[in-house]
Amino acid sequence: MNYLIIFYFATSLLFEVSFGVRLSPPTTSTLAPTTSPTQAALTISQELATGLPPQICADANSLTTPLGKLRTAMRNTSYTQMNAFFDAFLVFYSDEHLSEEPSPEERRLEYISGWEGVGTAAVLADGGAAIWVPAGDVRRARALLSCAWLVIDGDDPSQPTIVEWISERPGRNGRIGGDARLTSVGEWQMLSANLQREGLQLVHMPTLVDQLWNEEMDPMKRRPEFSRIVANLHKMDYTGVTWREKVWAVRNELRSMAADAMVVTALDEVAWLLNIRGRDNPYAPLLKAFVIISSKDVRVYAPPGKLSMPVREILAVYNCYTNSNNCTRVNEYTTIYSDLRRATESKILIPTAGTFQRGASAAIAQSVSQAKRLFQPSPIVYLKAQKNQAEIKGMRKAHLRDAVAMCTVMCYMETMGKSSLYEKTVAMKVDLTRATQAGYVSLSMQTRVAFGPNGAVPEYKATNDTNRRIFTNSTLVIQSGGQYDEGTTTVTRTLHYGTPSREERKAYTSVLRSLAAFGTLLTPATLPAAHTDPVVRAPLWSFKQDYIPPTGHGVGAALNRREDPVVIDYRQDTNLHTFREGYFITIEPAWYENRKFGVKLGNVLEVVPRPSNYLGFRESTLIPFEPKLIDKNLLTEYEINWLNAYNDRIRQTVGPELNIQGLTDVYYWMMNKTIKLESPRAKKNNPNSAVSYKSLQITTLIVTVNCILSNLLLTY
Amino acid sequence: MNYLIIFYFATSLLFEVSFGVRLSPPTTSTLAPTTSPTQAALTISQELATGLPPQICADANSLTTPLGKLRTAMRNTSYTQMNAFFDAFLVFYSDEHLSEEPSPEERRLEYISGWEGVGTAAVLADGGAAIWVPAGDVRRARALLSCAWLVIDGDDPSQPTIVEWISERPGRNGRIGGDARLTSVGEWQMLSANLQREGLQLVHMPTLVDQLWNEEMDPMKRRPEFSRIVANLHKMDYTGVTWREKVWAVRNELRSMAADAMVVTALDEVAWLLNIRGRDNPYAPLLKAFVIISSKDVRVYAPPGKLSMPVREILAVYNCYTNSNNCTRVNEYTTIYSDLRRATESKILIPTAGTFQRGASAAIAQSVSQAKRLFQPSPIVYLKAQKNQAEIKGMRKAHLRDAVAMCTVMCYMETMGKSSLYEKTVAMKVDLTRATQAGYVSLSMQTRVAFGPNGAVPEYKATNDTNRRIFTNSTLVIQSGGQYDEGTTTVTRTLHYGTPSREERKAYTSVLRSLAAFGTLLTPATLPAAHTDPVVRAPLWSFKQDYIPPTGHGVGAALNRREDPVVIDYRQDTNLHTFREGYFITIEPAWYENRKFGVKLGNVLEVVPRPSNYLGFRESTLIPFEPKLIDKNLLTEYEINWLNAYNDRIRQTVGPELNIQGLTDVYYWMMNKTIKLESPRAKKNNPNSAVSYKSLQITTLIVTVNCILSNLLLTY
Repeated sequence: MNYLIIFYFATSLLFEVSFGVRLSPPTTSTLAPTTSPTQAALTISQELATGLPPQICADANSLTTPLGKLRTAMRNTSYTQMNAFFDAFLVFYSDEHLSEEPSPEERRLEYISGWEGVGTAAVLADGGAAIWVPAGDVRRARALLSCAWLVIDGDDPSQPTIVEWISERPGRNGRIGGDARLTSVGEWQMLSANLQREGLQLVHMPTLVDQLWNEEMDPMKRRPEFSRIVANLHKMDYTGVTWREKVWAVRNELRSMAADAMVVTALDEVAWLLNIRGRDNPYAPLLKAFVIISSKDVRVYAPPGKLSMPVREILAVYNCYTNSNNCTRVNEYTTIYSDLRRATESKILIPTAGTFQRGASAAIAQSVSQAKRLFQPSPIVYLKAQKNQAEIKGMRKAHLRDAVAMCTVMCYMETMGKSSLYEKTVAMKVDLTRATQAGYVSLSMQTRVAFGPNGAVPEYKATNDTNRRIFTNSTLVIQSGGQYDEGTTTVTRTLHYGTPSREERKAYTSVLRSLAAFGTLLTPATLPAAHTDPVVRAPLWSFKQDYIPPTGHGVGAALNRREDPVVIDYRQDTNLHTFREGYFITIEPAWYENRKFGVKLGNVLEVVPRPSNYLGFRESTLIPFEPKLIDKNLLTEYEINWLNAYNDRIRQTVGPELNIQGLTDVYYWMMNKTIKLESPRAKKNNPNSAVSYKSLQITTLIVTVNCILSNLLLTY
Repeated sequence: MNYLIIFYFATSLLFEVSFGVRLSPPTTSTLAPTTSPTQAALTISQELATGLPPQICADANSLTTPLGKLRTAMRNTSYTQMNAFFDAFLVFYSDEHLSEEPSPEERRLEYISGWEGVGTAAVLADGGAAIWVPAGDVRRARALLSCAWLVIDGDDPSQPTIVEWISERPGRNGRIGGDARLTSVGEWQMLSANLQREGLQLVHMPTLVDQLWNEEMDPMKRRPEFSRIVANLHKMDYTGVTWREKVWAVRNELRSMAADAMVVTALDEVAWLLNIRGRDNPYAPLLKAFVIISSKDVRVYAPPGKLSMPVREILAVYNCYTNSNNCTRVNEYTTIYSDLRRATESKILIPTAGTFQRGASAAIAQSVSQAKRLFQPSPIVYLKAQKNQAEIKGMRKAHLRDAVAMCTVMCYMETMGKSSLYEKTVAMKVDLTRATQAGYVSLSMQTRVAFGPNGAVPEYKATNDTNRRIFTNSTLVIQSGGQYDEGTTTVTRTLHYGTPSREERKAYTSVLRSLAAFGTLLTPATLPAAHTDPVVRAPLWSFKQDYIPPTGHGVGAALNRREDPVVIDYRQDTNLHTFREGYFITIEPAWYENRKFGVKLGNVLEVVPRPSNYLGFRESTLIPFEPKLIDKNLLTEYEINWLNAYNDRIRQTVGPELNIQGLTDVYYWMMNKTIKLESPRAKKNNPNSAVSYKSLQITTLIVTVNCILSNLLLTY
């Protein structure tokens, strides 16, 4: 017990000294509970603090920063809209749909704190502000945020939780504010219950931060305008099924769950259901809208002017003049809450959280009267994950486009660009090349490029401070993806522009073996998807290598890059969802050699049926691996066969497309990267194959220099 | 809905015609509810029945069979010990400790029904008797049981449950009897609640079947006498830790669970805790006893005269004259129930079910007053599973003894015995050979030998009807195990006495690859054990081959062959127990080629620590595989290396022991079976190795004929 307290002191000391949260003289005394055990720590920190200049964190007390303005507003009744003030205010990361990647004008947390990633902030009226971020982001957040912010590792159980942190610094009113539209039911309820236990009340205050941001005059901080781009129809060629058929399917599911209606809150579910695509989110073609499906009607809640005429026509919006139920009612986006309060249905399904789909917000759930709430996973999760033939065709097409883009940029960089490249310029080149593809809509994720030691940081994102120049002495990891009209892609490849070391080749080959293990796997249809994780990781585990991120997850069809229900991760062992025919998933094993280099390879695979109720996996991503990073001696016969078949599919599928597009040099680059690997046994049986290998290599080597020519177009 | 009813009619028809349960004329009319929907089915079955001779099942109405006697007793107040009768009586399979393999005098279900396997029977007073058995046993039970019994597949959800079956045949009193000592809390409560919903009451009646059995005059059916063999100390050489240290460890666990006491009900937990071994169970060296550990004392409940003097001394039984708490109180076995009723502790841990450990019986739980019950998994499960150095040493020794026995019998059968062998004679030879080993105590399981198509039946047990002669045209599967003073073994090997077909070699090699996959695996210590199952099964899945039994489970140290907490089975996906250093587990993959042949290979492995918090697996079983069933071309380099290392360990470990025991011919047989497999790549690098392989082969071939000599001793 003593040990724990000491540890707490040590960490709180550390936070205080480094971030100066409690150093502002006018407020410290009111903050310090006179009998609390933290008293000692506080005194020490003050003593330590006296040795430092008092202006150590001017930002913490500034009234002109968004943080300072929020603090002022918390004690201003024209903002709080009640007679009382707030002791603390919570700022959440997401939008009203709990999107993984909210659009810029929804990033309230970034406005208030400057932190663009996932997190939750707590701002005290009397001074002090803390932000909880995932373990992997702590270092970056500390480097990025002003000294006004105490950055807390939200994944570390030894650190204080939001409620603990607030309740140790009690104010005068016992009232904590927050926007219930921007967090999940579960999170809000947990916060509310835990605060209550401390005698504090969590109050839903939707407009406070919005109002401040809308009033912001600083042009660098001003709230971006909401996109004016209208949402359009997603063609039947891509959807395969009409929106009416989808509504019918959802109603069937609702009936079996004894629900009369459902609120569709996730934006990819809305887009999937209505067969429309918008441009309201940065990395997915979504429209900001809610939908309510009842057994009788469909109600869409969208901002004004966001539905194109063809969309309105196909949704039969105009039929609603008559008393017909065969229409879609379009309402103002913000009226969803009042409409839910008035809803006549007796059981309304409110989606619960999956992994990426975080379910309905607390504000949505609270708008439904308690007796009517039916908390269940959204049935659309499963319907949407299982792609139909049109969607499968689209996904294949999108991956073909993506292969052309990636082959082009990889060819270019290898033959000329490598001399003056930085991580950020590589990312830009990848993005620009992808954007030249027909059917391109947007990126599906922020492109991540990591060179050398940066490659050993999971989910590394280059900043101006960390941006490394690409040399020939280490590996270069490129993780990226695109949204095309036809589908969504994501791919990770690792390159090397010099002579790889033995360690690098061992790492690369082991990661490749992980991909091969999954690519050659057949599983009974009843196997939980997460249970395939050890099959993928075993080749890496044999070198005591493991990686923190999940091995894989579902991929949407022209929707989110990450979608439920499948997550392949042995640490998420309560997710027992199985694979189904038509699911698309990623497999992204990695070898992170700390402070040295990283290797990551990621493919999208299609789940395909096999006889006797088995399922197999077929790579959708058709982009070559780097032969010089492959140590053939570490590969088994089975793995060599898999690799040769994969390379053959690239040649058969991507080859013609490169030729049609006139990318002859890229074609030869690709041919050179997909040369058949001879296995020792095959060589024994067929002495000629070695000869053909050699001759092909010579042919391709001659032509690779040409790659420069067609890629000159790409330099900018 | 209609569909379901029709299906029910069809199945009930089938049961009635084939087993004649309701055909006895005097009782049928009282059984048939006049308004029930089963009326129609009943009428049809009666009509069908009239076409058949009425004596089709004399057994169903006989009063002299145990079944008939039970029926009479159910309506006889001197047996029921109350003024009312029973409409139905439930007979459970197990003993008061819910042992997996009860001793013969505890097999009440076998006495009443003739069924020696797992199952539950329901006997109606008015005629009709049904037995629920696992899916895999249905066919055998139908062949074995008299026509008086309706055999129901307990795993088939379309079949009626015990409660459904009884409640469709209501009697006059609404009272159902059963012995709550012989079933788990969970099962009893479920039965009781479901019966109550049908207006029926489940009544605990412990003595009814026992009384009948004790009165049985038929010498073939008379109740066997309870073993008089006393339980002895398990030496410190084997246990490594004193019983006092174990009690101390359990008390620590109880304290952390806020329990004042615990009832130890599982016999292997009793034996482990007190460091004693008995002979009361057929396949494990256990003493029939209960233990209560409180924070102050230890109470043992054992039948009279079962504890040897050294046991009594070491348990400090004689200290109890003084008022000291430093003693063990030994009480009469049957007083546990009344003692629990009088217990002064305020929270008593009652073990809940694991997988093989089925937890406390309903009668034990009910003896503890409701407010004192704390249902939790037994902490002994985890303490017992993690073997200490002495136990590990013992397990290795036991496996060495087992290897000598198995090599000897396999050598014998190969060189002479195969000409006139049957499945049952092979089993007998295996058992006899094992019994000649020093330290041998008993078998650890009923030896299972299956030839040809019988090998394709999972968990096949030879009966007189199915007993096949061993020929040279198929595979022979031998699954067996032994209890030695030092530890417990179990092993499965597949042999072939002719020239194996390509299919058989493919099957054998694939099963061997499954073993290799696990043998070469390293896993993070946090991985749930069940998640390794796909790694083992993947080589079989690639041929769309899967097997129903679990891949593996924990093994006790001179205790049960199957022990909690580890079960490796992807179908049991809620068991998230991890491996720990010192666990012993089995890996038993199989290829069942329906109606043709079977291949099963099973090893015991020790969980060993590896750096960086990884765990590895090291084979304890050191018994050769059959080289002629291995298709080298299907093995990878990694697998060949694993196999060579395994064979090398057999030579290094078992070789000297065979020589010491003077089993020179068995030694050469073993050497011949463990010849190093050259990999194609190694051959390329080292031209000499092929020569050494040849020369060794010649040497060993010369000596194998000698195997006959030493084994002549084994013929009987």
